Amino acid sequence: VKKVRLGIVGLGRLGMRHAETARYCVRGAELVAACSLNPAELAGVKEQLGVEHCYSDFGQMIAGAGIDAVLVVSSSSEHVSHITQALDAGLHVFSEKPLGTTIEECRTAEKSVETHRNLVFMLGFMRRFDPSYAYAKRQIAAGAVGQPFMVRAYGLDPDALIDGALRFAATSGGIFLDMMIHDIDLARWFLGAEATMVHAIGGTFKYPDFALHGDVDNATALMQFEGGGMALFFTGRTAAHGYHIETEIVGTEGQIRIDGVPRKNRVTLYSERGTSEACVEAFPERFGEAFTLEIQEFVDCIREGRRPEVSVHDGTRATAVAYAATESLRSGKPVYLSPR
Amino acid sequence: VKKVRLGIVGLGRLGMRHAETARYCVRGAELVAACSLNPAELAGVKEQLGVEHCYSDFGQMIAGAGIDAVLVVSSSSEHVSHITQALDAGLHVFSEKPLGTTIEECRTAEKSVETHRNLVFMLGFMRRFDPSYAYAKRQIAAGAVGQPFMVRAYGLDPDALIDGALRFAATSGGIFLDMMIHDIDLARWFLGAEATMVHAIGGTFKYPDFALHGDVDNATALMQFEGGGMALFFTGRTAAHGYHIETEIVGTEGQIRIDGVPRKNRVTLYSERGTSEACVEAFPERFGEAFTLEIQEFVDCIREGRRPEVSVHDGTRATAVAYAATESLRSGKPVYLSPR
Amino acid sequence: VKKVRLGIVGLGRLGMRHAETARYCVRGAELVAACSLNPAELAGVKEQLGVEHCYSDFGQMIAGAGIDAVLVVSSSSEHVSHITQALDAGLHVFSEKPLGTTIEECRTAEKSVETHRNLVFMLGFMRRFDPSYAYAKRQIAAGAVGQPFMVRAYGLDPDALIDGALRFAATSGGIFLDMMIHDIDLARWFLGAEATMVHAIGGTFKYPDFALHGDVDNATALMQFEGGGMALFFTGRTAAHGYHIETEIVGTEGQIRIDGVPRKNRVTLYSERGTSEACVEAFPERFGEAFTLEIQEFVDCIREGRRPEVSVHDGTRATAVAYAATESLRSGKPVYLSPR
Amino acid sequence: VKKVRLGIVGLGRLGMRHAETARYCVRGAELVAACSLNPAELAGVKEQLGVEHCYSDFGQMIAGAGIDAVLVVSSSSEHVSHITQALDAGLHVFSEKPLGTTIEECRTAEKSVETHRNLVFMLGFMRRFDPSYAYAKRQIAAGAVGQPFMVRAYGLDPDALIDGALRFAATSGGIFLDMMIHDIDLARWFLGAEATMVHAIGGTFKYPDFALHGDVDNATALMQFEGGGMALFFTGRTAAHGYHIETEIVGTEGQIRIDGVPRKNRVTLYSERGTSEACVEAFPERFGEAFTLEIQEFVDCIREGRRPEVSVHDGTRATAVAYAATESLRSGKPVYLSPR
Repeated sequence: VKKVRLGIVGLGRLGMRHAETARYCVRGAELVAACSLNPAELAGVKEQLGVEHCYSDFGQMIAGAGIDAVLVVSSSSEHVSHITQALDAGLHVFSEKPLGTTIEECRTAEKSVETHRNLVFMLGFMRRFDPSYAYAKRQIAAGAVGQPFMVRAYGLDPDALIDGALRFAATSGGIFLDMMIHDIDLARWFLGAEATMVHAIGGTFKYPDFALHGDVDNATALMQFEGGGMALFFTGRTAAHGYHIETEIVGTEGQIRIDGVPRKNRVTLYSERGTSEACVEAFPERFGEAFTLEIQEFVDCIREGRRPEVSVHDGTRATAVAYAATESLRSGKPVYLSPR
Repeated sequence: VKKVRLGIVGLGRLGMRHAETARYCVRGAELVAACSLNPAELAGVKEQLGVEHCYSDFGQMIAGAGIDAVLVVSSSSEHVSHITQALDAGLHVFSEKPLGTTIEECRTAEKSVETHRNLVFMLGFMRRFDPSYAYAKRQIAAGAVGQPFMVRAYGLDPDALIDGALRFAATSGGIFLDMMIHDIDLARWFLGAEATMVHAIGGTFKYPDFALHGDVDNATALMQFEGGGMALFFTGRTAAHGYHIETEIVGTEGQIRIDGVPRKNRVTLYSERGTSEACVEAFPERFGEAFTLEIQEFVDCIREGRRPEVSVHDGTRATAVAYAATESLRSGKPVYLSPR
Repeated sequence: VKKVRLGIVGLGRLGMRHAETARYCVRGAELVAACSLNPAELAGVKEQLGVEHCYSDFGQMIAGAGIDAVLVVSSSSEHVSHITQALDAGLHVFSEKPLGTTIEECRTAEKSVETHRNLVFMLGFMRRFDPSYAYAKRQIAAGAVGQPFMVRAYGLDPDALIDGALRFAATSGGIFLDMMIHDIDLARWFLGAEATMVHAIGGTFKYPDFALHGDVDNATALMQFEGGGMALFFTGRTAAHGYHIETEIVGTEGQIRIDGVPRKNRVTLYSERGTSEACVEAFPERFGEAFTLEIQEFVDCIREGRRPEVSVHDGTRATAVAYAATESLRSGKPVYLSPR
Repeated sequence: VKKVRLGIVGLGRLGMRHAETARYCVRGAELVAACSLNPAELAGVKEQLGVEHCYSDFGQMIAGAGIDAVLVVSSSSEHVSHITQALDAGLHVFSEKPLGTTIEECRTAEKSVETHRNLVFMLGFMRRFDPSYAYAKRQIAAGAVGQPFMVRAYGLDPDALIDGALRFAATSGGIFLDMMIHDIDLARWFLGAEATMVHAIGGTFKYPDFALHGDVDNATALMQFEGGGMALFFTGRTAAHGYHIETEIVGTEGQIRIDGVPRKNRVTLYSERGTSEACVEAFPERFGEAFTLEIQEFVDCIREGRRPEVSVHDGTRATAVAYAATESLRSGKPVYLSPR
């Protein structure tokens, strides 16, 4: 099988990471093109990663670079446009989350993906590819917890990175679309069902400035799922100890917890403060391996003619639930969703 | 200071435990009287614990045994009657939870306690006396987590004891009054505020028979508190691994978790199944020390003329929230409470 | 069965603790007599614990107090004298370790115990009664690790208590007799065999003053046992984090570790320093329950006519090995022991 | 800086792993040549990794492939020959451990490295590059434990892989040279000193066949170091739970433990067996990242004109200590070494 020729659009922090992953860590593919409006970013990718074809115009890249697939890591508001253009040009597409910034955008993307059923489309819910999450999923499929009926999900960003969060407060879409959406996807994935009710509350407990944008610094939510499943969410931006993504799946015969103590490494210090473990500092440290594995899966799907497990529908659905949570926060009432 | 002369009413499993505690482990007190309708229980307490005065009539015990204080461990429906009789007789009272089985009963007890301000009244929310919970409370008071704004509380009974739970399903008052009430008290205690909204959901995921009594085998709840605090609850009767009481307090500068892994002891087994730890099997094992410490505190309050930290109001309030949760489960909607 | 009447000799810190245990926590016994050369200690025990008969002369206590059994918690150099006097007077004896301060003393005690086979004699190797150690022993007996062949034992005293250790440096008998002796007993117990070789090394890594008494502040040792078993020891007086007793038993099919992280309680703090757990501060905190359980076992053995599992021979043997370790440290060479 | 052209000799399991690492994961280098006596291995490396130049003769590869550096992953008995040939040909050399199979071979390699001081030579003590070990080293350098004076090192191979160990029993060099040598290097590294005494004991506790080759299946050792430092070693081939490399460094102000629970991932299962964690199964899983980082460091040293921290002397010295341990096991006595 010949190598998959990849192009990338968007070379911000996450874009550069995906570019490096595509260049160095993925097998069966090569990164041959990149697109950005920022000339410095293009120069960087050319020099550091040896990318041949650089573009400031997305249309030119998909038309002229001879690529098979595109990694969409542009700004959220451009995702749908880049997805549909690429699919229409006959290219496979990997897109970072969110799928779109409105439900309408998501539906547009969904339709485009359905129209191009021969092409691989994959959404970047990278946590599913993390070895611990994938292991948990296999254990559960093998019956380790019986029938799952409850998910608890923590998604805590480190207080040390609050400046960045404050800077993007106006455009992030809010804590549910920006952060909890990953946990919503996990709850759907582990329960195998769709949410029918979401009740979210929150507040600005440390950084009042989030309120200026109708956002909060910490939020919790209760969800009900088809068939009776339940989920508890806690999402926050002020974790003193680091980046803390913890998920628990409770079933009729047992429960699985992923990362109750988000250790940075295998070291324990015994000191006059007792015993202590350093924690993971940020998401690239925690999910670095998942980033590689998801791009590898995208490439393997193309080469092997498989469909990725993460579908466009997962993106639409998680977005819909995140919007419902946002609405619930604002109205102070539960929001009920149709599961279809 | 002379010894406090104690009487006890109710000699079921928990009653016998309190009797043993009062007889052997508490300093500054002696157990001199016991009351039960069951002659075998009275014979047992006489022979095993050497209790002098045994009664089948509560009125006779409080009038004739020359006691200073009563431990009320009778059936829930008798609590208020025993409390008020004892207080009216000038006796200090320790009562097991629940304070009452209806809000009205709670208010009756509350009034009686307020009338007898010179007498010590204490409610058996024993978790507050557990060394780990007490340590957490002190750490938080010392600023270890900054300003607390979120509590997560798990209260999981072992599946191994499900038969007992099923047997009492008709009379337990339901999962919120029977179990979650402890967690509600903890959330109030750690947040220092009262709940203003509760939204509870649940289901019979393993034992459909609970539905016959309008009850569930697992439930979750979201709560909002005065001042914006939040709480997430998960209460269940089907934990495969044992008795699992876990509480987490999140603040602006850190968080404290109590018992994420409910280890039975300090042993870790390394075997072909990986590493493993046995878990606590039931509540007397987990909270045995707390049972002793709470009775000791009751006795010390009497001897030192202090008021216990757990007040009758804590009982009324936790009960009110548990009822609201029950109502929310039944109606499928959030229930709003006045904090006063 | 009538209550066992107990007398105690020695009312230092550990003596007072045993006295309190005997007074409050043990069933089937009563503390009726105490002996000390220190009038203040006697006054304290009389007032606080209500001990009836107080003596400054040991002979008078065993002759005149009408007691059935004696708890020997006197200074180490008096143990053997008190043991033999009490046994000769027909009393059961519980003795704190060490059995004696020389091998000759141990053999004297051993002979006395053998002469009075009808009396219960028990040595205070309390760790065997700790719930975690007892659980480990039962698991191993049930085959959880296959055939045990290696023991690793840590015995670390907190640096916070170094002043006391320095104060007793001249009379403690050295780190092996004072501290490692407990670990030696555990290794013998878990391997079910006697040591045949000990090679110990050590140094004064933090407190040079120990060298003035021929002692060290930290030591390690390698031991070989009959049948080929092995043991590794690490004993120290300078643990920054607290009191750390850790034991691991390795067998052909698994291994068991007791207390790799000597947590003070069930609390985990998540803070800007990562996650941390407070540690046990001193031995009464770690082995408080074991102290109660060993005295209870002593009383139960008397009442039930059983022999305790910890024999006088355990004391002699552990002492002999501790002496061999001391000799090895001094000579810089391994010391070989006859296992009988 | 231009890319480093790498050749590799030896394409067994570890060789293939290093080849893949060099091909995919290392930056600033390319794998252009490979040498093996096994044509199938060469065909594999050509097809799967696209290696251009394949050789069955080592001399031809170093002369004709235009390479800058060689990765020596051949059989242990060929290491020194390949090292010296490559250095003499002006190539940088990375060699897997052991440096040589005799002290004489080690000294030959050492001399060759010293003669070619302009060339980079690095030995594959990969544990030093593991993120947890590197972190521990940095913490210790920053004073986290004060002055280190004791190291405890476990090196346990999984019982599940015992067949391979038995197959190589005749040629492995014994448990000290084959396994403990890594721990010896770590103890030297953390204590910053050389061993002066080693006393090793061991036995065949599960697999008597090791005795046929004068080897054991489990061994322990006590070591003394210059300046008084101490170390305890436990090395075994029969760990039921998996691959368990644990190292603890104890200092005057604290201690650091690396991997007391060798978790496979971040998942904890709560089941009727209590809580459990799967363990690491084998060394490539545990040290995969370290393998990449050590090759990267080798390449970076070449490109940046730096000397690697792991020197040829580390190889000679660790080998000498491993031989001393072997001698001690055989003689039943401690062996004393000159630290220079």
